[in-house]
Amino acid sequence: MKLARFKRGETLSWGVLTQNDVSDIKQNAPFLPASIVDFLQYKDELTPLLERCSKGVARYPLDEIELLSPVARPGKILAIARNYAKHAAEMGEAPPEGQRWFSKMATAINDPHGKVELPAVSDKLDYEAELVVVIGKYGRNVPVERAMEIVGGFTCGCDYSVRDWQKASPTMMMGKGFDSHAPIGPCIVTPDEIGDYRELRLRCLVDGEERQNGSAGDMIHDIASQIAHLSAAFTLEPGDLIFTGTPDGVAMAMDPPAWLKVGQRVRVEIDRIGVIESEIVAGRSECVIR
Amino acid sequence: MKLARFKRGETLSWGVLTQNDVSDIKQNAPFLPASIVDFLQYKDELTPLLERCSKGVARYPLDEIELLSPVARPGKILAIARNYAKHAAEMGEAPPEGQRWFSKMATAINDPHGKVELPAVSDKLDYEAELVVVIGKYGRNVPVERAMEIVGGFTCGCDYSVRDWQKASPTMMMGKGFDSHAPIGPCIVTPDEIGDYRELRLRCLVDGEERQNGSAGDMIHDIASQIAHLSAAFTLEPGDLIFTGTPDGVAMAMDPPAWLKVGQRVRVEIDRIGVIESEIVAGRSECVIR
Repeated sequence: MKLARFKRGETLSWGVLTQNDVSDIKQNAPFLPASIVDFLQYKDELTPLLERCSKGVARYPLDEIELLSPVARPGKILAIARNYAKHAAEMGEAPPEGQRWFSKMATAINDPHGKVELPAVSDKLDYEAELVVVIGKYGRNVPVERAMEIVGGFTCGCDYSVRDWQKASPTMMMGKGFDSHAPIGPCIVTPDEIGDYRELRLRCLVDGEERQNGSAGDMIHDIASQIAHLSAAFTLEPGDLIFTGTPDGVAMAMDPPAWLKVGQRVRVEIDRIGVIESEIVAGRSECVIR
Repeated sequence: MKLARFKRGETLSWGVLTQNDVSDIKQNAPFLPASIVDFLQYKDELTPLLERCSKGVARYPLDEIELLSPVARPGKILAIARNYAKHAAEMGEAPPEGQRWFSKMATAINDPHGKVELPAVSDKLDYEAELVVVIGKYGRNVPVERAMEIVGGFTCGCDYSVRDWQKASPTMMMGKGFDSHAPIGPCIVTPDEIGDYRELRLRCLVDGEERQNGSAGDMIHDIASQIAHLSAAFTLEPGDLIFTGTPDGVAMAMDPPAWLKVGQRVRVEIDRIGVIESEIVAGRSECVIR
């Protein structure tokens, strides 16, 4: 099942996505949870009801709606560094011992076709196509064997990275958290429809040119190990996002580095999930206080 | 003005805190914003109304209520590393070039008298008394000269740190984000009542023994510089928290390191704000999924 959040005119809703259209759950079944995240926590019990209600009258062709980030505001965006051996190598470093985690800011969330800012303070903007896990249940101290129980689904993400800001500090945080730098979507695909995520291929294209083409099966630390490690320290919650690492092929590793430029289009595709595509625009430098 | 969030029986509310009691804004003035964070965004306009409504009938002596973290769920918890020269020195390192930032998880938030977990996976728990800024307005690209405009107020915080997990990765994130490891409170004090924050002294006591006693005036990067740097990358939002660094005197720097033990009480005091005090309890290791 593919779940998408969308806007139609000024109205926000969510529903089940097919190749041609999306159902409007708020219209068809206002008694269902108000968001995909709330639904995911009770997915097992609510799925039969959701499937029935998706056959209701309100369905919209995709050209009548705008797809939004399927999670509006995650409580956490966690991301693992150098989790593909070839990407670690192209960055000139060995894979770290153990898991290396950083966070992206919740304010970085962007829609699947949202514009991505080339920061006013840097010209070293890079892409990283990633398979993103959407947490569906609360979990703490979850062992590897049970870790996949709290996965609500999978989506595509691009971990935009401002390399000079990232490299200025070993904590990585500042270069990873710029506004607009975490587009996700186009939908959340439930684990039953994904099957074995290790079979998924991730691709990143810049203006149609393939830059990344990797397999999720090449992760050094698999998703279950990631969840076990994170939840040994803190509670994972519905809507939390895990960016599971990027394969090789980033702009920084090219000779010379092919930093992203205003007007370019960056497309991330993952098998069985779909496509997100962003235009790079000039970031603004003026002060906004409100 | 001191603003506190509290629980009385099963009812949550917030109000203006005095030495003896707290007003109940939800009772006295249900038309005021529902949370301190929502109030802070419109503080200038709403303060006269709040002051009048605080004189209403519903006031409670402090022994009838339980103080809660004044921000229930921050969108971000940002923290600066080694921002006091003596603390950097005791950690055996020079202050970093520029500002070094990490994040704590929003799930780490704890009440001013909440219990703090000694993790099941570590025996290297440390304290860090910190002056915490509560952001009051949205701000992006805010220059140093205007940075203090978006400060909603100040509170006490303790940046509990699991040193072996922190040191296992240069990103610091995992060792800083354990559940319960970000107690804040007892209230948010507005800037007009704080005056010059550089005059504030921060103290940390463990079982009554003074461990830290520093001056906020000794920060290497002052609060305005911090806000300018952060907001060059992303939007700061009402309720975001900035942990502004800790003075020297942490457990790790003692010989031998005086790691926190179950049953100890850690007290953080800051002039003009107040006191938070936590008991250290054994963290749980059993799996919770819900």
